[in-house]
Amino acid sequence: MKFSEIVESLSPDLLRVEEAIDENFRSDVVLIPDVSGHLSGSGGKRIRPMLLLLSSRACGYAGPRMITHSVIVEYIHTATLLHDDVVDGAEVRRGNPSANSKWGNEASVLVGDFLFSRSFSMMAKDGSAEILRTMSDACTLLSEGEVLQLVNMFNTRITEEEYLDVIYRKTAALIASSCRVGALLGEASPSVVEAMHQFGVQVGYAFQLVDDALDYMGEEGRTGKEVGKDLREGNITMPLLRICTLATPAEFERLNQVIVNSNAVAPEDFSDVLELMEKYEAIPYTLDRARSYVEAAKSALSILPDSTHVDSLRAIADYIVERDY
Amino acid sequence: MKFSEIVESLSPDLLRVEEAIDENFRSDVVLIPDVSGHLSGSGGKRIRPMLLLLSSRACGYAGPRMITHSVIVEYIHTATLLHDDVVDGAEVRRGNPSANSKWGNEASVLVGDFLFSRSFSMMAKDGSAEILRTMSDACTLLSEGEVLQLVNMFNTRITEEEYLDVIYRKTAALIASSCRVGALLGEASPSVVEAMHQFGVQVGYAFQLVDDALDYMGEEGRTGKEVGKDLREGNITMPLLRICTLATPAEFERLNQVIVNSNAVAPEDFSDVLELMEKYEAIPYTLDRARSYVEAAKSALSILPDSTHVDSLRAIADYIVERDY
Repeated sequence: MKFSEIVESLSPDLLRVEEAIDENFRSDVVLIPDVSGHLSGSGGKRIRPMLLLLSSRACGYAGPRMITHSVIVEYIHTATLLHDDVVDGAEVRRGNPSANSKWGNEASVLVGDFLFSRSFSMMAKDGSAEILRTMSDACTLLSEGEVLQLVNMFNTRITEEEYLDVIYRKTAALIASSCRVGALLGEASPSVVEAMHQFGVQVGYAFQLVDDALDYMGEEGRTGKEVGKDLREGNITMPLLRICTLATPAEFERLNQVIVNSNAVAPEDFSDVLELMEKYEAIPYTLDRARSYVEAAKSALSILPDSTHVDSLRAIADYIVERDY
Repeated sequence: MKFSEIVESLSPDLLRVEEAIDENFRSDVVLIPDVSGHLSGSGGKRIRPMLLLLSSRACGYAGPRMITHSVIVEYIHTATLLHDDVVDGAEVRRGNPSANSKWGNEASVLVGDFLFSRSFSMMAKDGSAEILRTMSDACTLLSEGEVLQLVNMFNTRITEEEYLDVIYRKTAALIASSCRVGALLGEASPSVVEAMHQFGVQVGYAFQLVDDALDYMGEEGRTGKEVGKDLREGNITMPLLRICTLATPAEFERLNQVIVNSNAVAPEDFSDVLELMEKYEAIPYTLDRARSYVEAAKSALSILPDSTHVDSLRAIADYIVERDY
């Protein structure tokens, strides 16, 4: 099954999600709909809502609450993007000017807070204590992951284990919670809830690792992202971490030099980094790691009865390593 | 009853709150305890926890949940201070370097997010759907209030009604929720819950108006705040709004000139503003408004049976307009 086919099959659900996204960030306060709408209308892939919808359907629930909770995960994700862009000083997001470059850091911080708060208001209204626990714990992990990423900037000695912990909190926890919430909506048994959660964790790892690889592979026009953004922001992601680990002392010194001055990476610096990635096969290594996570994700699903929804979940996992943006 | 006597009588509760504040922002992620501890240890007045504790005791509950929820309101308040200081580019908070000037805007944004998330995790664990609704709605209002304040920067034509709406969302909503949560913990009747909420709303208005006045009255050493900070940040608060409303066309033009260039207010500009405030009695007007809110707050309490806790709530309301920092 192709990704476009999954999107197609989910399109009635996704349409309702889009409507509810627009509906719920309405506020009588100007700026809030503008900033929220700017990001939400700028072509996110809606991976988290898709996983939530499919997890819910795979566990036998297809009612209105899956729309509400899809909106909630997307709001939380959008809030973190708004805050991320402030933290990173990003000027571009998905090929468009970032909200902070358009309305200022102030608006991005505050509208992010609004989306967080609105998400919790929506959850409180929904009334499931277990979903609330799941999502608030995910948000705590998420903010810890962001702080961890911040304190590890320029840290060329970060280990793979430490980096995977950053990814777990920063990316995998929210994706896992999206899947878990779907299972909870379907009132699945504890073992199925746990399996869906595990599926999400593994998909989350894979998703971030592929993002890491794409950052050194993409062309700006295609991904809507600047190439080498992670390096310029001083973020040591898997491909860079890999070459830092394998580099000779001289290479390591050169890498440190580039990374410490990463706010002004010259083209020749960037080529040197890419050359080392080539030499140590850092990109294939990163993608291979992602593929193992995808396999683990798919086997977590074996506990569920076969259905087109479970097939779609598997296909999304595959898509994650095959995508080129 | 003096404020110091109330603090004294609440000191066993407040001690437990302080311990729980330190306990709950523990994280294995470095920086989080540092940034959280910096602000929480820098001498906040703990008005919100005090109101929650007294509301709870006044409604007959004195168990451990009032400690938990006191921590939660203080965390949410602290998170907004962290984000506020980023938005305002503040360098000083309570006489100490602000967290953003010490650790950077990035850390302040992310640790604020952590405290928000942790608060909701604690609420989810506590399990009261009604408290969650109360607090998440308060947070939504709060973020709307902050955005409203942002979009009204330099707006010398803001009306008193519009400004009071900003205050309601930005300050009164969270204070009202602190009181409401206390009443909910005491399983008070709906009319008592509503009365406690109203008490908090009125106290919240008064609290902010007094803050507004103090900003033009204080000496830096005493308040720990810079004098005229609101003006320099382009925030039109009640005293400034008042003179904008009453000014002659020539005075209004002069005010606009100062406010538009408020990032560089010269001493003579500031004296001109203070002179107009003197002429139009803007500070006494602001404090009078605050006093009316305090009276309204106290009469909302008449529904409750007399007790030392209710007396303390009245005394806190009085203290709010009498304080000089």
